[in-house]
Amino acid sequence: MSTAKPYNRLNKDDAVVLLVDHQTGLISLVQDFSPNEFKNNVLALGDLAKFFKLPTILTTSFENGPNGPMVPELKELFPDAPYIPRPGQINAWDNEDFVKAVKATGRKQLIIAGVVTDVCVAFPTLSALAEGFEVFVVTDASGTFNETVQQAAWARMTAAGAQLVNWFSVACELQIDWRNDMEGLANLLSPRIPNYRNLMNSYSALTAK
Amino acid sequence: MSTAKPYNRLNKDDAVVLLVDHQTGLISLVQDFSPNEFKNNVLALGDLAKFFKLPTILTTSFENGPNGPMVPELKELFPDAPYIPRPGQINAWDNEDFVKAVKATGRKQLIIAGVVTDVCVAFPTLSALAEGFEVFVVTDASGTFNETVQQAAWARMTAAGAQLVNWFSVACELQIDWRNDMEGLANLLSPRIPNYRNLMNSYSALTAK
Amino acid sequence: MSTAKPYNRLNKDDAVVLLVDHQTGLISLVQDFSPNEFKNNVLALGDLAKFFKLPTILTTSFENGPNGPMVPELKELFPDAPYIPRPGQINAWDNEDFVKAVKATGRKQLIIAGVVTDVCVAFPTLSALAEGFEVFVVTDASGTFNETVQQAAWARMTAAGAQLVNWFSVACELQIDWRNDMEGLANLLSPRIPNYRNLMNSYSALTAK
Amino acid sequence: MSTAKPYNRLNKDDAVVLLVDHQTGLISLVQDFSPNEFKNNVLALGDLAKFFKLPTILTTSFENGPNGPMVPELKELFPDAPYIPRPGQINAWDNEDFVKAVKATGRKQLIIAGVVTDVCVAFPTLSALAEGFEVFVVTDASGTFNETVQQAAWARMTAAGAQLVNWFSVACELQIDWRNDMEGLANLLSPRIPNYRNLMNSYSALTAK
Amino acid sequence: MSTAKPYNRLNKDDAVVLLVDHQTGLISLVQDFSPNEFKNNVLALGDLAKFFKLPTILTTSFENGPNGPMVPELKELFPDAPYIPRPGQINAWDNEDFVKAVKATGRKQLIIAGVVTDVCVAFPTLSALAEGFEVFVVTDASGTFNETVQQAAWARMTAAGAQLVNWFSVACELQIDWRNDMEGLANLLSPRIPNYRNLMNSYSALTAK
Amino acid sequence: MSTAKPYNRLNKDDAVVLLVDHQTGLISLVQDFSPNEFKNNVLALGDLAKFFKLPTILTTSFENGPNGPMVPELKELFPDAPYIPRPGQINAWDNEDFVKAVKATGRKQLIIAGVVTDVCVAFPTLSALAEGFEVFVVTDASGTFNETVQQAAWARMTAAGAQLVNWFSVACELQIDWRNDMEGLANLLSPRIPNYRNLMNSYSALTAK
Amino acid sequence: MSTAKPYNRLNKDDAVVLLVDHQTGLISLVQDFSPNEFKNNVLALGDLAKFFKLPTILTTSFENGPNGPMVPELKELFPDAPYIPRPGQINAWDNEDFVKAVKATGRKQLIIAGVVTDVCVAFPTLSALAEGFEVFVVTDASGTFNETVQQAAWARMTAAGAQLVNWFSVACELQIDWRNDMEGLANLLSPRIPNYRNLMNSYSALTAK
Amino acid sequence: MSTAKPYNRLNKDDAVVLLVDHQTGLISLVQDFSPNEFKNNVLALGDLAKFFKLPTILTTSFENGPNGPMVPELKELFPDAPYIPRPGQINAWDNEDFVKAVKATGRKQLIIAGVVTDVCVAFPTLSALAEGFEVFVVTDASGTFNETVQQAAWARMTAAGAQLVNWFSVACELQIDWRNDMEGLANLLSPRIPNYRNLMNSYSALTAK
Repeated sequence: MSTAKPYNRLNKDDAVVLLVDHQTGLISLVQDFSPNEFKNNVLALGDLAKFFKLPTILTTSFENGPNGPMVPELKELFPDAPYIPRPGQINAWDNEDFVKAVKATGRKQLIIAGVVTDVCVAFPTLSALAEGFEVFVVTDASGTFNETVQQAAWARMTAAGAQLVNWFSVACELQIDWRNDMEGLANLLSPRIPNYRNLMNSYSALTAK
Repeated sequence: MSTAKPYNRLNKDDAVVLLVDHQTGLISLVQDFSPNEFKNNVLALGDLAKFFKLPTILTTSFENGPNGPMVPELKELFPDAPYIPRPGQINAWDNEDFVKAVKATGRKQLIIAGVVTDVCVAFPTLSALAEGFEVFVVTDASGTFNETVQQAAWARMTAAGAQLVNWFSVACELQIDWRNDMEGLANLLSPRIPNYRNLMNSYSALTAK
Repeated sequence: MSTAKPYNRLNKDDAVVLLVDHQTGLISLVQDFSPNEFKNNVLALGDLAKFFKLPTILTTSFENGPNGPMVPELKELFPDAPYIPRPGQINAWDNEDFVKAVKATGRKQLIIAGVVTDVCVAFPTLSALAEGFEVFVVTDASGTFNETVQQAAWARMTAAGAQLVNWFSVACELQIDWRNDMEGLANLLSPRIPNYRNLMNSYSALTAK
Repeated sequence: MSTAKPYNRLNKDDAVVLLVDHQTGLISLVQDFSPNEFKNNVLALGDLAKFFKLPTILTTSFENGPNGPMVPELKELFPDAPYIPRPGQINAWDNEDFVKAVKATGRKQLIIAGVVTDVCVAFPTLSALAEGFEVFVVTDASGTFNETVQQAAWARMTAAGAQLVNWFSVACELQIDWRNDMEGLANLLSPRIPNYRNLMNSYSALTAK
Repeated sequence: MSTAKPYNRLNKDDAVVLLVDHQTGLISLVQDFSPNEFKNNVLALGDLAKFFKLPTILTTSFENGPNGPMVPELKELFPDAPYIPRPGQINAWDNEDFVKAVKATGRKQLIIAGVVTDVCVAFPTLSALAEGFEVFVVTDASGTFNETVQQAAWARMTAAGAQLVNWFSVACELQIDWRNDMEGLANLLSPRIPNYRNLMNSYSALTAK
Repeated sequence: MSTAKPYNRLNKDDAVVLLVDHQTGLISLVQDFSPNEFKNNVLALGDLAKFFKLPTILTTSFENGPNGPMVPELKELFPDAPYIPRPGQINAWDNEDFVKAVKATGRKQLIIAGVVTDVCVAFPTLSALAEGFEVFVVTDASGTFNETVQQAAWARMTAAGAQLVNWFSVACELQIDWRNDMEGLANLLSPRIPNYRNLMNSYSALTAK
Repeated sequence: MSTAKPYNRLNKDDAVVLLVDHQTGLISLVQDFSPNEFKNNVLALGDLAKFFKLPTILTTSFENGPNGPMVPELKELFPDAPYIPRPGQINAWDNEDFVKAVKATGRKQLIIAGVVTDVCVAFPTLSALAEGFEVFVVTDASGTFNETVQQAAWARMTAAGAQLVNWFSVACELQIDWRNDMEGLANLLSPRIPNYRNLMNSYSALTAK
Repeated sequence: MSTAKPYNRLNKDDAVVLLVDHQTGLISLVQDFSPNEFKNNVLALGDLAKFFKLPTILTTSFENGPNGPMVPELKELFPDAPYIPRPGQINAWDNEDFVKAVKATGRKQLIIAGVVTDVCVAFPTLSALAEGFEVFVVTDASGTFNETVQQAAWARMTAAGAQLVNWFSVACELQIDWRNDMEGLANLLSPRIPNYRNLMNSYSALTAK
């Protein structure tokens, strides 16, 4: 059928993770997720970037001012990653160093998350799409003022060609097959999905007997 | 008008039902439906597949581990259906046996539901669309972590060309005309739609006099 | 800009209203609106069809069975309108008399509402779009089982080219200019929008002095 | 401490179940539960009354009119129970036969549910409390127009001394100890609590090996 | 049991209805109900006051200013009722004429509703309770800014001894027995409870045959 | 009737306002109100304290640390009010200076609001009730982590005898009669209740003609 | 990649702001935002239009009737802006003066907001898109009857090519770089985003030491 | 005032923590909290019990069956605590060993949490209240089927004299004064309240300079 769309899967050899403005101050603006949900999702995205050895680029906006520093957990997770404190550009794609860092990876699939969704995620998403990148917006690791703003931002990005994903679907799409590293994937999921951890613990309790 | 889209209806001679990972453990991850609603919808989808004699393919992911076995009701409903326990592939479409089973039916309309929506439903949906199949996602028989993830997954699949349906609309689209089997359809709907059952019982009480 | 979409406005000389299966029994299935909201919206749509002298076609499904008769208010509002009790076709567009009645109007803009949205509205919408009609779905005069089903049905119809509207926007789009009949439009809106009626009554109280 | 309240537990030798106006027509008024949730809860209450061999009294209001007959499942579950079709009294406690039936049991703990909560449940609850009965309102097997009405009715009954319970807590309070009939209780819960059934099925799958 | 509370039912010979500040301007402040729900509930309360021939007292606050006049439907419904435009008192109970009108009825059960719940309803409720009246707050015919304010006001009034009711439960409690005037009660309920009206229409359609 | 509760109204000669820990850092914990709603409510409470010339006491917890300073607007509003930065006590009532300041007013009605509701409001509320003060909790100027925590805190305080109010009901209860200062009250309400401001502006526009 | 969409950013030299029917009466119809949220968003949009010196056009519908005058704050903010009271046209684009005013700016990016979304915003949006303008709908400064209507209107406008934005993303997209006027932007955001103001105040408190 | 209630604060020398049935299987029944919120709250309660050196008693129901073992984190946190696997009693208070363990602490303030709220928490709460204990229900570390059941259970326990608290208020009430162990309390809160952690990190970043 002629309208079939190709399915370019997320591919661990072609994907790069962009973490934009997850800063201790800015996160106080996020109200479309509860703080615990949001923290869990953001750190899970960090974990999976690490697990799949995806190149990861961090950027912040005015981290010495009220916006605060990047959350320490993320910074510690990627000690050697390109880290670009932007001196003023709101759209990270307007920062030459950031774009250079992205292009230096040679990768065309951008996995992006940030605070706030309608600005720090949406603007570089629209810019990158315009340059021919594929953009995967990690919706549950991106936060903003309220659900109305969230929904408007999602609609704008979808209309421009971005794909809406969540951290769990990113992990699964990259893993392809549990057998690629069963224990590794289980260790990735267990601390972030309590009901899955419970299943594993129930199982272990029974099979250990 | 040139932009008119053809309406390829669901057709009981061209449709196949795919039930992906409705497993006793995995279902504990579903929080975008209450457990009773979800169970009712999944079993209704099973019932209608049976009623319309649609070829049905079942698949599971690691059913001997924490994910648990397929829910027994589904398995019992389709004792002779292809049943493919996947040894590790997350996307069912990556499993050769599964795709073979689909293609063996010669049908091009896939009615799919599963757990979780953003992975077990979305991945094979995107794969099948890319190969030219029509895909109908049974939204209310597919569950996931929360409504945010649900909405993102719906948006991704819609953008790729999948059609979002619900079990009731599938049943009605296949039935075409009540007169094709009035009693059969009533029996299909009655145990799954309490308010419809109530209407029938009120009616019977009055007309039996 | 080449992507500009033409705006074919709803036009009282080219529009026809289709009221599908607003039956006393079936309405008990509607849970995505409160009963009072839904009744108000459906009757408002009836009122506006009358006010703008739009040809209106009514159809029902098994009105002698549990589905019950069309709500009397609608039937009384359109004593001379084509009224097609369907003997079994679920999709009203499968009923020859219904399609004939539509085509007899010579109009190409269908304003449709019904119960339930995912079936009785969605199916004729998809059929009519495929034949080149413009279809305007009156979302707030169409009801179904719950919001999940509502949203899936909206997405399916939108993807096929239907436009989602509400009764108030239909009235305003047809009226074009208040001066075409100021008192008439006020009388149409007043009983259906309490806060607007309140504004008018506050105004009258002050200006009558 | 002097303010300690005695805890008079529900006791299977002192409790009686009152099912008030769960009629096929009236249930269409219920909008504070989804139809499937409500049906499940009401039937679960019926099941537990049976399981614990509690005397059970059924009553209806105008069952030959629009209110419709009692839902057949309940009637069939209690073929020998007192069944009191009220000729007009809105408050079941105003019906002599009903009160006689209650008093004939010699029991002082009333477990009550019905449609609608604010009338058919609240009125006999207030009447019975005034006569010194203990009243346990099964909140999830009692339905009404919307959550605002539900919450007001709960507040009124609570202030008068009724205890708000749910069917599951009633079952557990009566059972006291799983060992009193482990299989029986499991069979009671399994069809009504899908996630519990899933746990049992996961467990069986593993331990059967 | 010594803690049993007496149940002083609403009694049409001892009840009086107080409608406080349902004014065309003030109603724009109400956001805890949709405008249509609220209008329906307020008018239903008016209807029942009329039906049961309850003395009814209307009062307004600054009806010549921004608050606007009482909604005309209420005023027309009670042309001969005491109508007290308060010159400034916020708590209607601070207005001598209002209290005199209440006391002139010789009745001790106050059925009260108004806008806004936390002030125009709560203040006279607390005042009247302090003087030994029984107060029944019609929660669904009383509106305020949002649900948080609503819930706080309910809690304050409940703690002071007011009973929370809704218009439907008031009607049923006063009617006692359908046989007191079956047609009258049906006519009262039919235009205000669409699903009940539907039941009646379904029934009529079947039994008229 | 003997159970009548006296209604000790809020009285501007016996009331004192306590603003507890509305600090720029702590407010980022509040998620049971949107930030704009919360800010509006807190400042409205400040405004009314000023308007009614109520003695007002401000206190903070570790204002030099992460909790941040009291919001500047409040501090500026009450330049001469007792201002007690607590060196460590969580319950403000454990701070001698705070209690002294309260008692120095000679007033027995405490109007309290703070962040977070379950701690900074609830603890001094329970302490003050135990000493015989009347406590009025301004629910909409007190914020906490989420609605579950809010509801639990409300229940605990209500059970202990606190009265739940909102800033608007406090203003109205203190004002008693609009004629006490019509313009003053209007000026108090106008910037905080947009729909009321709109009513006033609509009115002015018409009457100015 | 061929499907890449160009990203025509909002540009302060090519954008014009259209404020449609934010009138004191009409705003009482808005229920998809709380009144305080809505007021804050609308005024923020006004502020940013001023800040970026965007040409701004105001229009009203029957401002001498029940709809009321434009909210005074907006009118005062733009004393010299084109102000077009429409004599009857519902779609502002049907008013010649309005379209002339738009075209006189020579700009092609329309930033539009109004009351109600489904009519006063949607109609000119569809008209302008048809003429090749880019349209940015400020979703959070546009209000309507309820969320169902809001969602339907958003879908219709999105399908026609409009982009959904919020006032904050508009401000950030126009600003491009904080360094263009750091203090100016901070002053714009501070009174409208309480949590951001709090961050700034916390920061100042610490760094002032 | 004579109705003043004494405020018996939670006291670390008189309190004991009861963790009831937080088992890996049973937790899949919890739907009134998201899994991450619930896990966070339960572990925070465990942390605080440890931090304040409160005696803590753990109990489970059929941990070798489908209910699964206690969540390992809790078990590891209290290696030496009384651990009572109940052989069948549903109400933990019916288990002699459990009650002995409670009474052996000599403490009268019970801090209880468990799964499910309406049974495993409510039953021992009602039993303990009847024996004169003070009971503090940690509402956010106790989960159940849905919010309706949650609210009914809260109402029942409140009416019986239990106090509803949350883990954070328990921690603060026990701590009394930050100076008792400032760093310790900060370390307790930081991993469980992300927005508080963010405040601390923002603060450190600034003050470290």
